Amino acid sequence: MFESLKLKHEVSKEEFKAEEPLLRGQLIDAQFDLLESEEFPVIVLLSGMDFLGRGATAKQLMNWMDSRHVRPYASIQPGDQELDRPRMWRFWRALPRKGRIGVFLNAWYETPTRDYLLGRIDRTQLRAHTDEILRFEQMLAQEGTLLLKFMFMVPKDQSVKEVKKLAKRRTAAWKISKEEIEIGKEFSKRYDHVVSVVEEIVSATSTSYAPWIPLASADAHYRDLTIGRALTVGIRNRLNQPGSQTPNIGASATIGSTGPNVLDSLDLDSSLTREAYRAQLKKEQHRLTTATLARKFEDRALVVAFEGNDAAGKGGSIRRVVQALDPRMQRVIPIAAPSDEEKAQPYLWRFWRHIPRKGHITIFDRSWYGRLLVERIEGFSAENDWMRAFEEIRSFESELADYGIIVVKFWLAIDKDEQLRRFEQREEVGYKRYKITDEDWRNRDKWDDYRQAVHDMVDRTSTSNAPWTLVEANDKYFARIKVLKTINDRLEAEL
Amino acid sequence: MFESLKLKHEVSKEEFKAEEPLLRGQLIDAQFDLLESEEFPVIVLLSGMDFLGRGATAKQLMNWMDSRHVRPYASIQPGDQELDRPRMWRFWRALPRKGRIGVFLNAWYETPTRDYLLGRIDRTQLRAHTDEILRFEQMLAQEGTLLLKFMFMVPKDQSVKEVKKLAKRRTAAWKISKEEIEIGKEFSKRYDHVVSVVEEIVSATSTSYAPWIPLASADAHYRDLTIGRALTVGIRNRLNQPGSQTPNIGASATIGSTGPNVLDSLDLDSSLTREAYRAQLKKEQHRLTTATLARKFEDRALVVAFEGNDAAGKGGSIRRVVQALDPRMQRVIPIAAPSDEEKAQPYLWRFWRHIPRKGHITIFDRSWYGRLLVERIEGFSAENDWMRAFEEIRSFESELADYGIIVVKFWLAIDKDEQLRRFEQREEVGYKRYKITDEDWRNRDKWDDYRQAVHDMVDRTSTSNAPWTLVEANDKYFARIKVLKTINDRLEAEL
Repeated sequence: MFESLKLKHEVSKEEFKAEEPLLRGQLIDAQFDLLESEEFPVIVLLSGMDFLGRGATAKQLMNWMDSRHVRPYASIQPGDQELDRPRMWRFWRALPRKGRIGVFLNAWYETPTRDYLLGRIDRTQLRAHTDEILRFEQMLAQEGTLLLKFMFMVPKDQSVKEVKKLAKRRTAAWKISKEEIEIGKEFSKRYDHVVSVVEEIVSATSTSYAPWIPLASADAHYRDLTIGRALTVGIRNRLNQPGSQTPNIGASATIGSTGPNVLDSLDLDSSLTREAYRAQLKKEQHRLTTATLARKFEDRALVVAFEGNDAAGKGGSIRRVVQALDPRMQRVIPIAAPSDEEKAQPYLWRFWRHIPRKGHITIFDRSWYGRLLVERIEGFSAENDWMRAFEEIRSFESELADYGIIVVKFWLAIDKDEQLRRFEQREEVGYKRYKITDEDWRNRDKWDDYRQAVHDMVDRTSTSNAPWTLVEANDKYFARIKVLKTINDRLEAEL
Repeated sequence: MFESLKLKHEVSKEEFKAEEPLLRGQLIDAQFDLLESEEFPVIVLLSGMDFLGRGATAKQLMNWMDSRHVRPYASIQPGDQELDRPRMWRFWRALPRKGRIGVFLNAWYETPTRDYLLGRIDRTQLRAHTDEILRFEQMLAQEGTLLLKFMFMVPKDQSVKEVKKLAKRRTAAWKISKEEIEIGKEFSKRYDHVVSVVEEIVSATSTSYAPWIPLASADAHYRDLTIGRALTVGIRNRLNQPGSQTPNIGASATIGSTGPNVLDSLDLDSSLTREAYRAQLKKEQHRLTTATLARKFEDRALVVAFEGNDAAGKGGSIRRVVQALDPRMQRVIPIAAPSDEEKAQPYLWRFWRHIPRKGHITIFDRSWYGRLLVERIEGFSAENDWMRAFEEIRSFESELADYGIIVVKFWLAIDKDEQLRRFEQREEVGYKRYKITDEDWRNRDKWDDYRQAVHDMVDRTSTSNAPWTLVEANDKYFARIKVLKTINDRLEAEL
């Protein structure tokens, strides 16, 4: 879920200085328009294990805005008035009224997350907490609250030492408790475990009306600008649609911001020689045959979803996979525009119908991610529909995984020049099946929209159950081998 | 939650014969208008422990409608195609398309309910199931499906014998499996346990877009007419609002039907002599003082909500309670129209703020139920808002109960003549605090609307955690003693 953490998320001091006055002006304008409208309250939730950045960001937000109309809430130890009442009482008391903005440090997520990490509560209790939170946030959204939830996260290589150093360097704008230092140590020591816990909580509580926004928080400038922008756009979008019935208007403003892109991490020119390709193809296809014919596979199943730029070579990769499979066990399902029958059903229906039974394999040539790609970009889906797709798709895939189905997802990435080369080549060859359509050229015009949509998609739907694999596909040999190898590694790990 | 089960729910053969042709005509008209519109699918879920009535009702619905466009789904044992796939797969396959109606016997609730009742899964696993169901139904609703869920239920005194007799008498329209007979026996033996399990499942899965409709199903005529009417009204209402964004339009059609009313069960003329009253008042007030001063109460708290007809004597009852309490421990909160500050917050905010701390008592003179009474009737709340209040209030009260707060709720009922007598008496006396306002007279004009609203409220928000007590209040003495006694019984049982 936090794929983009691996990238650098930095804004230089100069960029920040250039950007800040502008953003500040827009933010305070939005704040005052909101205040005058008295239309809805805004809650900014700064959450997550980065126990360093949150306080500073909250302070920055308070500085940027007119702090008389911002209600900060820092959940240090609850007082005895609070301990003597049900646990949500103190949050009810702290809710901002319509027209106001509440900045919450962690708030209702803090206690369950910490207690679970420190082994004070078990998974069942954690689930009871997240259920309660879900109901609470649903109520807030239906009452009109704009909820922006940021999950702060730092990359693995930020060591304990750095954490400690930062802790010393920071001015004590918000106190750092001993417990937080404990959590910090724990966090660095058991990073992967912590990330999986956070992923679980984020999955359980990310909804169309209150989606989590994963935030790489190591760099203060990047962090503060990102939140400041999202807050401004969120308020502005919601104000522009007064009285709207859909409670999540504005929430989508928090996605598609201008940070780095997961696709940046790829070296698209990774390549293989023809000889290396031939040797490895043979080897990997043999691995795949062996794994899928293994007795253990009879009780499992495999779903592979291929997405990618137009002309990225999905078809060729799929063929290399299919060659290694017993034809009776596998089906390839090409996904195009929905049929009439499919349109008359809920979106995921047409994918559910092709879910393989035990011991079988379904390969989707394009997939349920269409809603987050073409449908989002072309406006075929309403914002409300594609926003809830993040959550629905995660549930869908985890239902498959819970049943024992192995889910593998590929994005085949090529660059713009390579795509042009392939388009032109295909127009020359002119086989019908390869024909480049007007639609392909139109999609190409929206290259940057797709880049952003891919980033959001990978960022929010790559889970430990069903991770995305980004495939460098300028070189077809390299891409095909990476695809096969990824499937094989997953199969061997799971069986 | 099934308060109204105690009442007789019967429709005579003659009434049924008179009603049926009319309903049938309306239903088939609605069905064909839906079919032509292709606007949305309808799912009718016939669920619950009454393993006798469901099949017959499904058959009746199929008879009434044009069965070519109705898709029945009877979840007998899943086939091997189904067992080989994730558990929701078969329901996805069975979904009706837009314009069609699907009649499901139990469907996705069946397995978890049975498995839990028979001890095959524990509470955590049950919760995982209901979470999955919640996500599934939310998706359906957001995709436009009209979901009508009926929970069949028979009263406790329907013995094993009757159950068996009915089973023999019925023609085998839908097969009754051995397991169902097992469940039936189990059901009769452990009625209270089963009801509490069903209550738990219903609470967890009743939402504003797919609320459960509790249905007394012992009488076939009553049952079939009720469902037929709800289905007709639901389709009709939704068709009248094409393209609406709120997915629960139509769902509310299922409440406020014309069955018996919980208030029917009351003998409003129950009374006490002055002497008996004096003696019992002294005794009950002493019990209350003792209970609330007990050491064990220091770790608990008490919330009492008073609702009732205008002039039913809430004030007098509250005074008799307060007299027995240490003034430092208690507060009485009169609930009137919300203040500006309260209006700028979510609905339940103004009640949360008065939740007592440990060892304390809050008495609400009118309460959060205003949304389901005056706000619903006067249209101060949108349908969408009061429909979700059923669920929100149940969560609210269970959060209180989970924390150890004892929740007691009273509806003080008088009849229309008694109210008139009291109104006239008060106008003669003319103390300002007793003054009868125009609003009181207006409310009186809506007597029948209130009766229906009270019925729905009690039916759907009376839980084992926070049960409603209906108080016969034509005689003030009787009412006051019943109030005190109910509080005392609860306190003594809880402490």
